Amino acid sequence: MRIGELSRRTGVSVPTIKYYVREGLLPAGQLTSPNQAAYEETHVRRLRLIRALLDVGGLSVAGIREVIAAVDDPGRPVHDMLGTAADRVVPRYDDGTDGPGERLAAARETVNALVERRGWRGHADAPAAESLAIALAALDNVGHGGFAEVLDDYAAAAERVARADLDYVSRNVVREELVESVVVGTVLGDAMFAALRRLAHADASDRVFGTEA
Amino acid sequence: MRIGELSRRTGVSVPTIKYYVREGLLPAGQLTSPNQAAYEETHVRRLRLIRALLDVGGLSVAGIREVIAAVDDPGRPVHDMLGTAADRVVPRYDDGTDGPGERLAAARETVNALVERRGWRGHADAPAAESLAIALAALDNVGHGGFAEVLDDYAAAAERVARADLDYVSRNVVREELVESVVVGTVLGDAMFAALRRLAHADASDRVFGTEA
Repeated sequence: MRIGELSRRTGVSVPTIKYYVREGLLPAGQLTSPNQAAYEETHVRRLRLIRALLDVGGLSVAGIREVIAAVDDPGRPVHDMLGTAADRVVPRYDDGTDGPGERLAAARETVNALVERRGWRGHADAPAAESLAIALAALDNVGHGGFAEVLDDYAAAAERVARADLDYVSRNVVREELVESVVVGTVLGDAMFAALRRLAHADASDRVFGTEA
Repeated sequence: MRIGELSRRTGVSVPTIKYYVREGLLPAGQLTSPNQAAYEETHVRRLRLIRALLDVGGLSVAGIREVIAAVDDPGRPVHDMLGTAADRVVPRYDDGTDGPGERLAAARETVNALVERRGWRGHADAPAAESLAIALAALDNVGHGGFAEVLDDYAAAAERVARADLDYVSRNVVREELVESVVVGTVLGDAMFAALRRLAHADASDRVFGTEA
């Protein structure tokens, strides 16, 4: 197809498509004349992946380049490819302080112990492990270090959600679209769960506090 | 205590304390001379609440004023006071489109059916219900409307987390600090769960995809 059709099918403007080609995010089309190139279905899929990483995942062009390198490496195992993509969409809680120091070190210990206790496979220096430690240190910092006692309930709930996610992905997503689905599902799944947690809070709060005058 | 000690105890600068008093967020101290006022423990607690709403919850001054009005209203039931605070810290997923229209209407139906199915008490027009509908519509928009099939797994996980949250709050938090704890716990709990979901993903992905070459 011509670049105009590629633009219509993906909703990405022609100048933006050309920009992605220049930045090395999208392979150039096959030249059919000095001024015309032909594009394939692989370009449609790649553009959808780029837009998902950009619009939903909030990645920079450099971050997208790294994910795409992982996708394009035929020797890279799927698990590793997905991990590279997922590591780029880890939300970071910034507590605005100059680093809690000792608290963060203790929180990292807590996270390592949790990962070991749950038998979770994966590297301990994953960005998500550090994000969790930062959130725990921030809780400790505002006097709620005891909140760490709910960690195992949270972890069990996260396992249930992750199983549902992977189950959906393995049944519904073809290999070519795995990374796109993981990025979209990771970010939108966060939003879904945060909203559901609030709805469940309202219900639990009504049951605990709702009967008083 | 003098304003200097209040500043030291809370880490909030004296000019900022005066600004909060002018904005009506913090009650003025008791004047002990034309140029001096005395502050109490209630001021320390209120400053901590303001900072939690501001730094952790990301609320505006107007939003903080609304939460504080709910906290200060002695006739307001605890459940309602907590709901007012929680409704202010609902993260919104912005899909950047001009509104999915029909998709959003269908997603709202899905959310209403879910709330009914789970027997969740609470008003259907809660900001969290709308956030959930927006996330579902966005998923549909990128071709993953089928992901809604995981909703009940997510909801069951959210119930477990909410029970653990309320259990912690009812055992560890005095009434005066309830709102502060709910705001901090809501925002930092989101960050905790998002990180745990990624760690659980890495484990689940390793089990599903990790054995291939």
